[in-house]
Amino acid sequence: MADLAAALGEIVGPEHVAVGDAINEDLTHDEALTAEWVAPAAAASPASTEEVAAIVALARDRGVPVTARGSGTGMSGACIPQPDGILVSFERMAEILEIDEENHVAVVQPGVTLAQLDEATKAVGLVYPVFPGENSASLGGNVATNAGGMRAVRYGVTRHQVIGLTAVLGTGEVIRTGGKFVKGSSGYDLTQLIIGSEGTLAVATEAILRLHPRLTAGSTVLIPFSTLDEVAAAVPRIVGSGLMPTILEYIDFITMGAITAAQNLELGVPQEIKDAAMAYLVVVLENRTDGRVEEDVQELAELATGLGALDLYVLPAHSGAALIDAREKAFWTAKAMNADDIIDMVVPRSEISAYLTKVQEVAQPTGSLVVGCGHAGDGNVHLSVFQPDVAKRKAVVGDILRAGAALGGAVSGEHGIGTEKKRYLAEIEDPAKLDLMRRIKASFDPAGILNPGVIFDERA
Amino acid sequence: MADLAAALGEIVGPEHVAVGDAINEDLTHDEALTAEWVAPAAAASPASTEEVAAIVALARDRGVPVTARGSGTGMSGACIPQPDGILVSFERMAEILEIDEENHVAVVQPGVTLAQLDEATKAVGLVYPVFPGENSASLGGNVATNAGGMRAVRYGVTRHQVIGLTAVLGTGEVIRTGGKFVKGSSGYDLTQLIIGSEGTLAVATEAILRLHPRLTAGSTVLIPFSTLDEVAAAVPRIVGSGLMPTILEYIDFITMGAITAAQNLELGVPQEIKDAAMAYLVVVLENRTDGRVEEDVQELAELATGLGALDLYVLPAHSGAALIDAREKAFWTAKAMNADDIIDMVVPRSEISAYLTKVQEVAQPTGSLVVGCGHAGDGNVHLSVFQPDVAKRKAVVGDILRAGAALGGAVSGEHGIGTEKKRYLAEIEDPAKLDLMRRIKASFDPAGILNPGVIFDERA
Repeated sequence: MADLAAALGEIVGPEHVAVGDAINEDLTHDEALTAEWVAPAAAASPASTEEVAAIVALARDRGVPVTARGSGTGMSGACIPQPDGILVSFERMAEILEIDEENHVAVVQPGVTLAQLDEATKAVGLVYPVFPGENSASLGGNVATNAGGMRAVRYGVTRHQVIGLTAVLGTGEVIRTGGKFVKGSSGYDLTQLIIGSEGTLAVATEAILRLHPRLTAGSTVLIPFSTLDEVAAAVPRIVGSGLMPTILEYIDFITMGAITAAQNLELGVPQEIKDAAMAYLVVVLENRTDGRVEEDVQELAELATGLGALDLYVLPAHSGAALIDAREKAFWTAKAMNADDIIDMVVPRSEISAYLTKVQEVAQPTGSLVVGCGHAGDGNVHLSVFQPDVAKRKAVVGDILRAGAALGGAVSGEHGIGTEKKRYLAEIEDPAKLDLMRRIKASFDPAGILNPGVIFDERA
Repeated sequence: MADLAAALGEIVGPEHVAVGDAINEDLTHDEALTAEWVAPAAAASPASTEEVAAIVALARDRGVPVTARGSGTGMSGACIPQPDGILVSFERMAEILEIDEENHVAVVQPGVTLAQLDEATKAVGLVYPVFPGENSASLGGNVATNAGGMRAVRYGVTRHQVIGLTAVLGTGEVIRTGGKFVKGSSGYDLTQLIIGSEGTLAVATEAILRLHPRLTAGSTVLIPFSTLDEVAAAVPRIVGSGLMPTILEYIDFITMGAITAAQNLELGVPQEIKDAAMAYLVVVLENRTDGRVEEDVQELAELATGLGALDLYVLPAHSGAALIDAREKAFWTAKAMNADDIIDMVVPRSEISAYLTKVQEVAQPTGSLVVGCGHAGDGNVHLSVFQPDVAKRKAVVGDILRAGAALGGAVSGEHGIGTEKKRYLAEIEDPAKLDLMRRIKASFDPAGILNPGVIFDERA
């Protein structure tokens, strides 16, 4: 281990390598509720793509695993290192290299946080529109997990914003993919393949991101419904209206109670409506002028009334922002309440109601409490599972995920598989596809050193 | 060959197999200007995914190449079969399997044409927003080449609309990727990898496509400029305005003259403006109401005046549609004028002017005439090259593509590489990336039977 540290020190400088007790505890975990924390053999902080390439080449020569991490805000254990492995930490590669206003492009290093990028783009009237709910998250981590968030219903997810990468393959080779253009048909789309691969195919060291004009006129609307079925039925109608909501969330009444209580948030909903509401839609409408937003809110109100809404509340700006903030913190609220696992299944949006009914059928007989909220416009459901018994919890999570797959869904909408959901993916996914993924991994990483054991095990 | 035909006949029925002179000449070519026409050993028309899988398994066992084709409207030779190979033609798999209005999704077989899908979606107020300019094109071909077109500036290209595939690997295995949802993070994105792979990784037999609300209010605006620099400078400003044009095209004065003459189109531009105009922008604005379109046109007019436009013409609906139609037929106009090759380089949109200047510097000393138009908002430049001498033409095309790559561009924005641009890709692209693509191909198609020699040669 001393030898590994010395070799890493030659690459990044000895002051940027840590071993043993000198390794910051933060580097041993992410935010997955179920994962064990693991310290790597050594942690290294490179300052350039060349240094990352040299680290990977060293790991390849020694057959040592390499795990890259940004801010460690992931939900599925994908950036937890191996005990005999190298952890690559990007705090020294956290620079916004360029904001290109002509091409609406940002070029960033992997350690740049969403908060940092948001500040820089705001200054020039642009926006990077992926808000996964945790602004301390890094762009490198977002690329690795294909992070989503509330604004995906309008703008798509990380995958739709990343148009180029610099990445180090498991061979130690450095490739550059894509460029400052949104379309291309010049061979396989390696950019798209690396996005969402959770550090198993390549280590991204630079990303070219699309920016969009920042809309400054907007309104947050809260719509209570007396049944979840009505919420689910309203979603395709709102999307189909062409109003292009920036946010279209559902929140069940338990989660709404919890997140508003946690943030001391009073939204002005009368008690009798609160009592009758089984679920809420939160809709953010944005447009280029206040006048257009007002018209759009009016149209939404008419639509919602026809869809059986109990009422409709156009929130004052500060309450609207506070509600979105509280919703973003839903995970922390669930964690504080000792949730045992979280799920981010995605299903066709028309199936949300059927899915949530099925979830309760599966959960209740086991004595598990399952509550949640989600990106209704995308069919992406976040569930908190309260079941302290580990075996029971694994069984119920498996059943909940299988129920979603049976409705045409997938195990993860935006958190990724990591180590914590791979057992379920292995059960649910077609073995032929998993084998194909293993062969693809081998084409990027013949030595199998890049984040092994993440997404799938080396062998079925 | 008789034996191969018999074996194929057992799979698809003898009446759906053709050999020798019975093979329709249409099946021997696409629309690439430079490609030689090739008849396959046998052409087969399967009726199901299972039949396609059986054909691929047969080909794998015999080591025979398989090329899939839709309507044959491609521009780079990617669906031209091999003389000893099997051509899979999708005229019997041309059904729209589902229009799902709740999820805004269409499920189609590969032989479905864009015209067919447009009619079906129009009936329910939705739209599949990829219009590559040739409505007889098939969705299977669009997926294979990641087709783009004029509306990509607003909606993106095929890649951004395809959310799931059924596909046959080179092993003969059938996989299903994605689903009726727009986000997912459950392993590698095989959907995205297959899109744009030009039939070299898998044969797509079904696609799940995103649909969008169809906007019915719109206006077409023609804006002449006296220099190409002004056109190029205007593009980022118009995109940055947030007006979200559905179409944002530049057309040089030679091309404008040719396409309007070919269609007998009179747009009401006075002769003195025509004489002064070196290039035109064509902008289509769409919105949810006529009132909003009128406001947006007004804002565009103010913007264009400030950007040095010679004038601005809001075209009557029929002229607007006719101009877009004429622009879509630009390729046919160029072909009728005996263009020798076409190029669809993509560069960062801010580099269009620099690029076109460079193109003329490269072309003029060789006596080649190079004119064009393009998707200005995307930096995607279509150039017609008039140079009858083959060696000179190849040299000038190579120089033009290298000039674009030097500005941060890629060889093809939307036509694909096929057989006709692979020599240039091989020269321009990083050999490490091409080798990686070869390894990826081997992971899908270990026997190397799926469209070999397309995009790249088997060995460097």
